[in-house]
Amino acid sequence: MTSDPEPIALDILNRVDDTSFTVAMNGVFEHAPWVVEAAAGHRPFASLADLYTTLTGIVRDAPLEQRLTLVRGHPDLAGKAARAGDLTSDSTAEQASAGLDRLSDAEYAEFHRLNDAYHAKFGFPFIVCVRRHGKESILANFARRLENTPQAELDTALAEVLRIGALRLDQRVTAADRLSVHGRLSTHILDTHRGRPAEGVAIELFELTGGDSIRLVVRAVTNADGRTDAPLIAGRPLPTARYELRFHLGAYFAGLHVPLADPPFLDVVPVRFAIAEPEGHYHVPLLATPWSYSTYRGS
Amino acid sequence: MTSDPEPIALDILNRVDDTSFTVAMNGVFEHAPWVVEAAAGHRPFASLADLYTTLTGIVRDAPLEQRLTLVRGHPDLAGKAARAGDLTSDSTAEQASAGLDRLSDAEYAEFHRLNDAYHAKFGFPFIVCVRRHGKESILANFARRLENTPQAELDTALAEVLRIGALRLDQRVTAADRLSVHGRLSTHILDTHRGRPAEGVAIELFELTGGDSIRLVVRAVTNADGRTDAPLIAGRPLPTARYELRFHLGAYFAGLHVPLADPPFLDVVPVRFAIAEPEGHYHVPLLATPWSYSTYRGS
Amino acid sequence: MTSDPEPIALDILNRVDDTSFTVAMNGVFEHAPWVVEAAAGHRPFASLADLYTTLTGIVRDAPLEQRLTLVRGHPDLAGKAARAGDLTSDSTAEQASAGLDRLSDAEYAEFHRLNDAYHAKFGFPFIVCVRRHGKESILANFARRLENTPQAELDTALAEVLRIGALRLDQRVTAADRLSVHGRLSTHILDTHRGRPAEGVAIELFELTGGDSIRLVVRAVTNADGRTDAPLIAGRPLPTARYELRFHLGAYFAGLHVPLADPPFLDVVPVRFAIAEPEGHYHVPLLATPWSYSTYRGS
Amino acid sequence: MTSDPEPIALDILNRVDDTSFTVAMNGVFEHAPWVVEAAAGHRPFASLADLYTTLTGIVRDAPLEQRLTLVRGHPDLAGKAARAGDLTSDSTAEQASAGLDRLSDAEYAEFHRLNDAYHAKFGFPFIVCVRRHGKESILANFARRLENTPQAELDTALAEVLRIGALRLDQRVTAADRLSVHGRLSTHILDTHRGRPAEGVAIELFELTGGDSIRLVVRAVTNADGRTDAPLIAGRPLPTARYELRFHLGAYFAGLHVPLADPPFLDVVPVRFAIAEPEGHYHVPLLATPWSYSTYRGS
Repeated sequence: MTSDPEPIALDILNRVDDTSFTVAMNGVFEHAPWVVEAAAGHRPFASLADLYTTLTGIVRDAPLEQRLTLVRGHPDLAGKAARAGDLTSDSTAEQASAGLDRLSDAEYAEFHRLNDAYHAKFGFPFIVCVRRHGKESILANFARRLENTPQAELDTALAEVLRIGALRLDQRVTAADRLSVHGRLSTHILDTHRGRPAEGVAIELFELTGGDSIRLVVRAVTNADGRTDAPLIAGRPLPTARYELRFHLGAYFAGLHVPLADPPFLDVVPVRFAIAEPEGHYHVPLLATPWSYSTYRGS
Repeated sequence: MTSDPEPIALDILNRVDDTSFTVAMNGVFEHAPWVVEAAAGHRPFASLADLYTTLTGIVRDAPLEQRLTLVRGHPDLAGKAARAGDLTSDSTAEQASAGLDRLSDAEYAEFHRLNDAYHAKFGFPFIVCVRRHGKESILANFARRLENTPQAELDTALAEVLRIGALRLDQRVTAADRLSVHGRLSTHILDTHRGRPAEGVAIELFELTGGDSIRLVVRAVTNADGRTDAPLIAGRPLPTARYELRFHLGAYFAGLHVPLADPPFLDVVPVRFAIAEPEGHYHVPLLATPWSYSTYRGS
Repeated sequence: MTSDPEPIALDILNRVDDTSFTVAMNGVFEHAPWVVEAAAGHRPFASLADLYTTLTGIVRDAPLEQRLTLVRGHPDLAGKAARAGDLTSDSTAEQASAGLDRLSDAEYAEFHRLNDAYHAKFGFPFIVCVRRHGKESILANFARRLENTPQAELDTALAEVLRIGALRLDQRVTAADRLSVHGRLSTHILDTHRGRPAEGVAIELFELTGGDSIRLVVRAVTNADGRTDAPLIAGRPLPTARYELRFHLGAYFAGLHVPLADPPFLDVVPVRFAIAEPEGHYHVPLLATPWSYSTYRGS
Repeated sequence: MTSDPEPIALDILNRVDDTSFTVAMNGVFEHAPWVVEAAAGHRPFASLADLYTTLTGIVRDAPLEQRLTLVRGHPDLAGKAARAGDLTSDSTAEQASAGLDRLSDAEYAEFHRLNDAYHAKFGFPFIVCVRRHGKESILANFARRLENTPQAELDTALAEVLRIGALRLDQRVTAADRLSVHGRLSTHILDTHRGRPAEGVAIELFELTGGDSIRLVVRAVTNADGRTDAPLIAGRPLPTARYELRFHLGAYFAGLHVPLADPPFLDVVPVRFAIAEPEGHYHVPLLATPWSYSTYRGS
C-alpha cells in the first residue's frame, strides 16, 4: 500500500500542462485515464464542483462501449485480485475501510457467489462506493441490485463510479469549495439530574457487522459541554450500517456520589440506531438521570 | 428430582396432629426438622406471617451450637453434592433457578475456590437465597461476605436461611395472607408517534450472565394496552442481576406503514438495567417514535 | 332545583306495572313520556344496554312528526326558559355543568344570536348533550351545525337526544352492566431525579373557558404511588374542552432538599391539552427532575 | 432621553489626553467622575478586562467616606427623581429595561415603602444592577437586603455599582476582549414525530411580572434547523425572572397534515421556567410529537 499523495490546489491544476493535469488526476476513475484527459481541455475550473460536473458529463456522454469499459475496469469486491493484493492503492484502502479485507470464510464464499451471479447476469463487476456502506449494507445492496435490469444496473454502476470519483477528488484536490461527500455523527450528553452537561462520560461507538459481531469504531470522553471534542465520525461519508453507542453512565454518576442502587439501575447504556444517509448529519444525544434516559435523532 | 407437593391450607395445618404438621413442613429448613417440630406447639397460627414469625423466633433463639448445625446442614453452592445429584429437591430446584447447574468449567473452579476459602474462614458452607440472585450477584456476594467477621457472617447466613425458609413456606402453605417474598417486573410501550399504546410489539427479556453471555428469560408481545398480558417476572423474587429488554420497534412501525429510513433509524431497541431489590416492583416502560425513545424506572 | 332521585334497580323495573315503569323513567326523554311508555311492553330487559337499545329503536322508528315533536320539546341552551328558571331539573343541572348558567352578557348575546339563526333555519331548538362539552366546544358545535342541511341536522339533533337519554338512564337505573357514557382523566408524577413516584405534589386542573379565563375543576395531591387517590375526572363524560394541569414541582423538590437555583428553574409546571373524546381515557403523566420534564398522552 | 453615544475603541482611549479620557468615560460611575479620572493615569490598558480591574481597584480602595458618596450619588429606584424625569440617561434606560417606568400605583407604593425603610436603616439609596433583574426579582432582593447589616450592605451596594459600571463600560468601549456581562437564552424544537428539526413554529417569550400579568419579550419563528435565527435574548444580562415560552405546535402539525384530534391534544405548549444566572447560557429546547413533549435545561 502506498501513502496518500499530498492534495493539490485547484488553481495549480488549472495552470499546469495537460500531461501534468492528467498525471495529478490519475486514478480518480479506476483504470480510465481518458476521463481526466478529456477534462484537461475544459480548464480552468471555477470550483471543485465545476471540475466534478465536467467529469460527470464526460462519463455520462461517453459511448456505451466506453462506459462499459470504464465499469469493467473496476475490481471485484472481495475478489481474487483483492486477495492477491493486485488492487490499486485507492481500491485497497476503500475495500479495507468496509472490512472487506477481514472477511470470514463464509463471507468470502458469499461474496464469491454474488460476484459470479452478478457477472453472469450483467457481464461486468459489481461496483459500489464502499466508503458509503458497512459490510451488511454492501451485501444487502448486492442482493437487491441483482434484481435490476441490465440497463438500470449499468446506470447504477456508473452512478457508483462517479461517487467513488467524487471521494477520490475530495482527497486529491483542495479548493475554496468542497464537494458534499461527507457526513457527520455526533452526540451530546445532558445530565438532567443536575441540569448541566455531563462531563467525563466514556463513550464507545461500535458498528454492528452482522449476527453478534461488532467492530469498535471510536472511543471518546465527553468534555465540559457534554460533547466529544471531535465528532464521532466526520470528514468522510457515514457508512450505511447499524451502530451501537455505549454511554458509561453508571461510572459517571458514581463519580458524582449520587445515591445509586447496587448494582446501579443504569450502568452502560446502549443506543442502537442505523445510518441511512451517508452524507447526512446524525446527532444522537442522551438526556439522562440515574433512573431514566431519552435519546432521539437530533440536529 | 421430585415434583412439587400440593400446597396445603394453613387452617388444615392448624388442625392436624403434631407429626403430620412436622411432615408437611419438612424441608422448609434444610435438614433441620427440629425447627418445625418446635413450631407445632405454637399452633394455631392466625396467618402465614404469624407462622413465619414463630419459625424465625425459634431459629434466632436456638443455642449457638444448634444454629451452627442448622447452617452446616446446607449444601455448598455448585459443590460436590450438587454435581453428584445429592441435594434435596428444594436445593436442586433453587440452584438450577440461578443457572448453577449449567456453569462453565471456569465458573465451577471459581465456586470451588470460594467455597474452600469460605469453609476455611467460617467453618460452615456459604448460604445465600439463590432465588433472589443471578449468577453474577451470587459471586459478588460471595466475595464480599468473605470479608465479614465470623459473628457477622453467621448472622448473615441465618438471615439467608430464613429467606430460603420464607420462599419454601410460600410454596407449601396457602393462607389468606401472603409473605412479601415476591417482586414484579413489568413494561409498557407507548407509541408517542400516534398517541396510543403500542400493540403487537415483540419483546425479549435477557439476563446478562457475565461477559458477553446472555440468557433468555421470557418473550412476550404487547397487547392492546401496550402491556404484556402477564408481568415479565412475577410470583417469585426478582433475581438481582443485570438485564436487557429488547423492543422490536422497527417491525412495529413498519407494520403501521409509517415512513421509515432504510435501514430504519431504530429497529431493535435494547434497554439495559439492573434489579437490586428482589421484592421490589420494577416497571421499565418505553415511550417511542420511529426517531426517539425514553425509558425510566416507573411505578 | 330538585334533588336527584335514588337510582332504581333494573330487575325491579322489569317487575313493576307499566305505569310505575313509566313514572320511574319519566324525563329520560325531555317532555316525551311516549318513548318510555312504548318501552314498557318490551320488558324484561336483560341488561341496561338492552333497555337503551330498545329506547333508541323506538325513537329512530317513530314517524317524522313525532321525532320533530321530541326535538321541539327541548329548551334552548342559555335561552329564556333557562334564565327564567323554567327548565326541568335535569336540564337545569346539565346546563349548569357546562357553565351556561354563568355566562357573561356578551356570551348570552352570542347564544341568543345563534339560537335565533338556528330556529330560523331548522324550526327546532339546538340540542347538544352539554355534559360532553365545555362552553367553547358548545359554541364551536353550534356554529358548525348551522351549516348542516335540515335532514342531516335532524339526525344530529336526535343523536344528541339519545346521548342525553343515555346519561340520564345511567343515573336513574342500576344494573349489572353500565352504558359506556363515562370517560376518565388521570395523571401520575414520576420523580426521575430519584427514580420513584413523586409523593405530595399539589396539582390543579383548570378548564380554559375562552380568552384568558379559566375555571378550577379540581385540586389534588399525589399519593405514595405518584397518583391522585381518585381520577381527576371520572363517573361522567369528559367535557370536550381545553385544560391546564399545574404541577407544583418547585415546592416538591424544595421539600426534598434537592439543590435548586433561586428562583428554581422549574416551579409550577403547566401542561395544556385538549380532550376530544368524552368517553375516552386520558392519562396525562409527568416525568420530572428539577431541570426537565416530559408529558404525553398515556394509557 | 438621549441617544447612546458611539462606542469608542480602547486603543484610542489609551492614546487621548487625560481630559478626553475622563469625558469619554463620564457616567460609567453615576455622578462619580473621580473614579475614571483616577484611572486615566494607569493607561495604557492591555484589555477591557484590565481597564475594568483598575476601576474596580480604585473603587474598592477609596476611603470609606468616598465610597459612601459614590453610593449616595445613585438615584432611588422608581423614586421621585425617576418620576420627575431627573435621572441620567443611563439610569433612565436601565430603570425602563426592568419596567420600573410602568409600575402600577400599588407597585409605586411598595417601592416607596421599601426605599424609605432602606434609607432609614442604611442612610443611602438601594442600588441594584437592574438590567440583571425582572421586577419581581428586584423586589425580592430589596426585601432580602433590608435584613443585611450596614457593613455587609455597603459591600453589596458597591458590588452592584461595579456591575452597573461593567455594563456601561461594555456599551461604551470596544476592544479585542469582552467583559463577561452577557447571558444568552435560546431554544430549539425537534419534531420527534418525523425525526427532524421543526421548521416554521411560532414562538413567544413572555416575562411573568407578578400575579397574572405577563409582558411579551420577543416573538420568533423557527428556521430550517428548528432554531430561531437569533437567540431569544442575547447581548445583555438575562434578567433574573420567571418566563413562559409558548410553542405553537398545533398549527405546525396541522400544517404538515398530521392526523390530529379535534381540538388537537396539544396546541399552544407553554413552558414556564426561571432564570437565576444573568450571565449564564440557558437553552430551553422542546422535543415534540402531536401527543407528547419534553423540555429541559440544555446546553
